[in-house]
Amino acid sequence: MSATTAESLQAEVDRLRLELQTLKSKQGVEKVSIGNYLLTRLAQLGVKSMFGVPGDFNLGFLDLVEDHPDIEWVGNCNELNAAYAADGYARVKNNSLGVVTTTFGVGELSATNGIAGAFSEMVPVLHIAGVPSTIQQKHRPLLHHTLGDGRYGAYAEISKQITCHTAWLSNVDTAAQQIDEAITQCLTKTRPVYLTLPTDFVQEKISSERLHIPLARIVTQNDPQTEEFVVDQIERRVKEVDGDVVVLVDACVVRYNVKAELMAFLEATGFPVYAAPMGKSAIDETWKRYGGIYVGSITDPVIKENVEKAKLIISVGSLKSDFNSGNFSYNIPTRRLIELHSDHVQIAYAIYKDIGFKHLLPKLTERLQQFYPTASKIPVAPFEAKPPKGTATAAIITQRYFWPRMASYFKSGDVIVTETGTANFGILDVPLPPKTTLVSQILWGSIGWSVGAALGVAIAAKELGLPRTILFVGDGSLQLTVQEISPMIRLGLKPIIFLLNNHGYVIERTIHGKNRKYNDIADWKWNQLLDTLGDRKTETKSYTITTPKELESLLTDKEFLSNKTITLVEIIMDRLDAPRLLEDQVAIAEKMAAQAAQTEK
Amino acid sequence: MSATTAESLQAEVDRLRLELQTLKSKQGVEKVSIGNYLLTRLAQLGVKSMFGVPGDFNLGFLDLVEDHPDIEWVGNCNELNAAYAADGYARVKNNSLGVVTTTFGVGELSATNGIAGAFSEMVPVLHIAGVPSTIQQKHRPLLHHTLGDGRYGAYAEISKQITCHTAWLSNVDTAAQQIDEAITQCLTKTRPVYLTLPTDFVQEKISSERLHIPLARIVTQNDPQTEEFVVDQIERRVKEVDGDVVVLVDACVVRYNVKAELMAFLEATGFPVYAAPMGKSAIDETWKRYGGIYVGSITDPVIKENVEKAKLIISVGSLKSDFNSGNFSYNIPTRRLIELHSDHVQIAYAIYKDIGFKHLLPKLTERLQQFYPTASKIPVAPFEAKPPKGTATAAIITQRYFWPRMASYFKSGDVIVTETGTANFGILDVPLPPKTTLVSQILWGSIGWSVGAALGVAIAAKELGLPRTILFVGDGSLQLTVQEISPMIRLGLKPIIFLLNNHGYVIERTIHGKNRKYNDIADWKWNQLLDTLGDRKTETKSYTITTPKELESLLTDKEFLSNKTITLVEIIMDRLDAPRLLEDQVAIAEKMAAQAAQTEK
Repeated sequence: MSATTAESLQAEVDRLRLELQTLKSKQGVEKVSIGNYLLTRLAQLGVKSMFGVPGDFNLGFLDLVEDHPDIEWVGNCNELNAAYAADGYARVKNNSLGVVTTTFGVGELSATNGIAGAFSEMVPVLHIAGVPSTIQQKHRPLLHHTLGDGRYGAYAEISKQITCHTAWLSNVDTAAQQIDEAITQCLTKTRPVYLTLPTDFVQEKISSERLHIPLARIVTQNDPQTEEFVVDQIERRVKEVDGDVVVLVDACVVRYNVKAELMAFLEATGFPVYAAPMGKSAIDETWKRYGGIYVGSITDPVIKENVEKAKLIISVGSLKSDFNSGNFSYNIPTRRLIELHSDHVQIAYAIYKDIGFKHLLPKLTERLQQFYPTASKIPVAPFEAKPPKGTATAAIITQRYFWPRMASYFKSGDVIVTETGTANFGILDVPLPPKTTLVSQILWGSIGWSVGAALGVAIAAKELGLPRTILFVGDGSLQLTVQEISPMIRLGLKPIIFLLNNHGYVIERTIHGKNRKYNDIADWKWNQLLDTLGDRKTETKSYTITTPKELESLLTDKEFLSNKTITLVEIIMDRLDAPRLLEDQVAIAEKMAAQAAQTEK
Repeated sequence: MSATTAESLQAEVDRLRLELQTLKSKQGVEKVSIGNYLLTRLAQLGVKSMFGVPGDFNLGFLDLVEDHPDIEWVGNCNELNAAYAADGYARVKNNSLGVVTTTFGVGELSATNGIAGAFSEMVPVLHIAGVPSTIQQKHRPLLHHTLGDGRYGAYAEISKQITCHTAWLSNVDTAAQQIDEAITQCLTKTRPVYLTLPTDFVQEKISSERLHIPLARIVTQNDPQTEEFVVDQIERRVKEVDGDVVVLVDACVVRYNVKAELMAFLEATGFPVYAAPMGKSAIDETWKRYGGIYVGSITDPVIKENVEKAKLIISVGSLKSDFNSGNFSYNIPTRRLIELHSDHVQIAYAIYKDIGFKHLLPKLTERLQQFYPTASKIPVAPFEAKPPKGTATAAIITQRYFWPRMASYFKSGDVIVTETGTANFGILDVPLPPKTTLVSQILWGSIGWSVGAALGVAIAAKELGLPRTILFVGDGSLQLTVQEISPMIRLGLKPIIFLLNNHGYVIERTIHGKNRKYNDIADWKWNQLLDTLGDRKTETKSYTITTPKELESLLTDKEFLSNKTITLVEIIMDRLDAPRLLEDQVAIAEKMAAQAAQTEK
């Protein structure tokens, strides 16, 4: 018997033993290793895929991951991309979390930007860092991957700035408790958590008793008296305006998972509803009372008037970042505003602490459905998109043509990922079919994020039975994280990647340096990319599209629509062409910055 | 006149004005913008290339960089790679520094691992982060690229953990002073420094007076009395052992730039000299008294005996990290050891603070040259490398064949970059020609580093007139940072990239999980890579080599040797083949970890 065969058999024996142990530990019969305790917790919460890169301080743990019956190890090409993938995964798998495993120092620090993005955008990502053994931590030798000065705790200090909780495992007896606390914090605060796993703890045995009690996202009940008072106040305000209300949906509706509660509220009350950019796709965009995107003073004029003329605006899960609010240009006086948040309510100037929308919304639905007869008659202009006249026959594909044209390409169940850059702005004017999910990173806005995220999204979508993942990314952004296309191919995923090739950073050109060289990038042979980064086995398809006519024929081509392989569609665009909303956003930001500078003087 | 032409002309006008202003400011005639003050300082120190990625908080500054007559902007593909490139650049440009410019949050945090690596390995990298205007910093609006909670200072807190100095510009009047302090700290401590540049400060005018006084690396003079005492002590010790001394060269000889002083010392005294892995190429490896690499108990037996039998070992610039010392297995009793460091000396157990080797070495040279007659007769086995018998005719290229074979490929003036992984170990047994530079990252050991670093190295080498940059990297590592090949092509650089394709992470396989899937990666079409990531204009060449015979014929091929284009040579190797030193390193680390665990119990 060859050494390799023996090793393979041994690996299978280990795998079966672990499977047995996992089952036994479920019944509380015996002890469980800390590594498997952690994995069982994650599996209980629906984690089926974990992201990361191997490194010598996490290899022992990866044995357990690879052998776990319910969890797949997704080897990423680098740690930043892995963090992005965990972020994308968490966004699609509601009430679960994304997990990224890295190695001490070099690995974990490469993920910093990805974890910070998940913090900023409120995405539950658990970052497991494989760290030196507790013995090494005690003596702190000059190991590789250290800063050379014995500061073994420096990386945890870094993580503290960008996570809501850090758990440094150093005591076997409290490990289970620390793990449970870390996961619960991650879910409940929907922010990243940092957890260290020393190499010698992976196989340490602990009681599996706690595993009988599942962990869950805790949404605190509202104080009944305060809640009752708030409901009364809101009812009074709605009465005063005779039901002339508009609802604004924003990011936290998605992040704190109140989509169902909100939809019930909208159906019962008939209030017209609009979305901020970060709230797009939070509710069905074909809902008859849905009117499109409100983004302050750069909103489409008809929508702007419809929102701003309402006597009362109920904003749900609002997050007023610059790019999400037309550079803070909401024209809605506070006295006409009610804000429902995950942890408080604000009615005009009055703040009600600890009243969260999850439990409040059903009560508001009950109380405010009386206004349906009036509210449901407030007109809502249909939210449609058609390519402007002439753009479909032009010689080049323009942003003004492209996005409305894509509307009819989308199908129910699609998961659409848009990159920071032109795509994040272009998609806003496109109505999406029911049950589509839009995944974007508007607040953090890290270029390249969408590629790593799309990997996690595609895996999550597959787990949930959602057929298509569609990515829109520019050439400037794709180059940052391009290697993450490789795991997509290796895993047999079939995302459709629309690569908007405008030869550089168009979002930057729109902001500053229109003809500057620093905004240019090399013109890669994009249509060779899938073939080069593939695994020599999996089939891939690439297209280069230069005219609207070619795009039209592609989008109606049966083979293309059959989506049998991962596909890259390179769309050639002009180097200065930007979506209207991006141009308006930049113009208003410049104007307001100039005013602010004037005021300071 | 078209808008584009007008803009181009305007850009040229701006450029000329800036050039004029730069000249005038050199004469102290007028004020200078803070942005140009910073650039003038960098140019004075020999910085000719700057690395980074554009982002909306640094675009204004990039205008100045692009227009600067003496500095080139190198647009990297992502910020981690940019930090790696700045690190590589700084390592080759002695007494200068590497500079990386990123944007607020998303950009700067992507560079975290690269900056931490420069800290760990003592490389002077200045990290300039373009940050929001001072007005925005005062009011802290919910801008994109923020954490969403108003903590504008969080990224600086992160940087504090991995830099030796942070400068947060917030006052125009002290900006010049802060910039000077930041650069001086970077040079003097040879560690990264973090400097923020608010968008509204870039064009703020300040006095150019300070620019008349150049900045420099400050090496503090030793206290003459202590120094005299130390020299006496060392002379006494050398006398006691009748000049039976061996010198060990290590990392800090390179980092603190005492190569010339050390060589003079070696020539004058005739002491035999060996190098630790991180000290390799610090002195000419063809020097008749040079005997090869000492790395504790895994050293080649002949070298090991020659070093350890010496009655006195003078170690210069030692850095005893695990991978640099055979897992801390030096067999040299402290009583037989003298350590010279950048900031202290240790003789047996006595420590002499604030006595640095830069000024000490010349004095030791003078005092110890008396021992030349004896010392120069201590035998040193010639340091040679030949492929073991049979390996050159084998069907596959092995590590044991490959590295010795490369010895005769190298030429004087080569700059060789080796990746963490098999390459860092394989190169150790290869004697290098005079005036070659070996660049590697043995302490920090971040996989993928060598690719970004090679870009910076190739640029620095070009600036210094060094003809060839040669990179050795494995497929597992290359995938992390692969896009950085693109700027190499765009800039017309011609590195020779030896890609050791062993289908995964061999360093990890050697450590743990020999047949684990998590150590495998997808089998890219590596020989298409240069063509795909190129710019459609620049010529590239790629080879796939599977046998020693093919390699032999390539390495003697005139066209290949003419090095007219960037070249990738894919070397197919077995998935478990590792250099001897790597295998020994892993074995000894395992053994010692087991002993340590036993001791703790």
